Amino acid sequence: MAPTPAAIRATVESYIRSVAKGTTDEVLALYAPGATVEDPVGTDVRITEESLREFYAMIEPLTQTGELLTLKIAGGNAAFLFRLTTHLGEQNLVMEVVDVMTFDDDARITSMKAYWSQEDMQTVPAS
Amino acid sequence: MAPTPAAIRATVESYIRSVAKGTTDEVLALYAPGATVEDPVGTDVRITEESLREFYAMIEPLTQTGELLTLKIAGGNAAFLFRLTTHLGEQNLVMEVVDVMTFDDDARITSMKAYWSQEDMQTVPAS
Repeated sequence: MAPTPAAIRATVESYIRSVAKGTTDEVLALYAPGATVEDPVGTDVRITEESLREFYAMIEPLTQTGELLTLKIAGGNAAFLFRLTTHLGEQNLVMEVVDVMTFDDDARITSMKAYWSQEDMQTVPAS
Repeated sequence: MAPTPAAIRATVESYIRSVAKGTTDEVLALYAPGATVEDPVGTDVRITEESLREFYAMIEPLTQTGELLTLKIAGGNAAFLFRLTTHLGEQNLVMEVVDVMTFDDDARITSMKAYWSQEDMQTVPAS
């Protein structure tokens, strides 16, 4: 049975919080076994837990703030726009991305595709 | 060769304009032969030109305004958030949707998936 919209929303919110402020283990716990990650779309798809771990471990040490801007749910899938701000002392790196996710019955992520390019990243003075 | 971001942007902008204010033929002209449409995601995928025509013909008579809110391009694909307002006399039906599209080398749409559900539609008084 497809997960409920509420369960999908909870996973998406946990995902953004974990990516911004959590550990790699916390992010990985939101994924189902065998899940795939394509970030950004057009690059090699990560298909092993090791490669997912490697990916999220890169951003674990960063000081970040995550913000869900828009979430659309359809047929047990989600597409959402979020903003990830990386705090780099006097500057912030601000990135806005659309992620598309599929889920298993327990609302664990089975695939993630991220739509963004260089032009969706900008550096702004920290306020 | 994948289409340029500028070509993809032009197709997406033409798509929103044509869906809101154009004819079914104008919308169909943006699609490549053999293109598929899943709107909303989770419903049957439309795989024939006839079924695409039937889909867009339903909204052709409506008085609508379309607005591109966010466009992300990655690896020759697009994900974008747009608002479609249907003018119904004293009321407007406002719908916000995330579409994901793939394109051929000429930036014609080869597939479209729309992420939305009932909760993304709301009726507001016309101002």
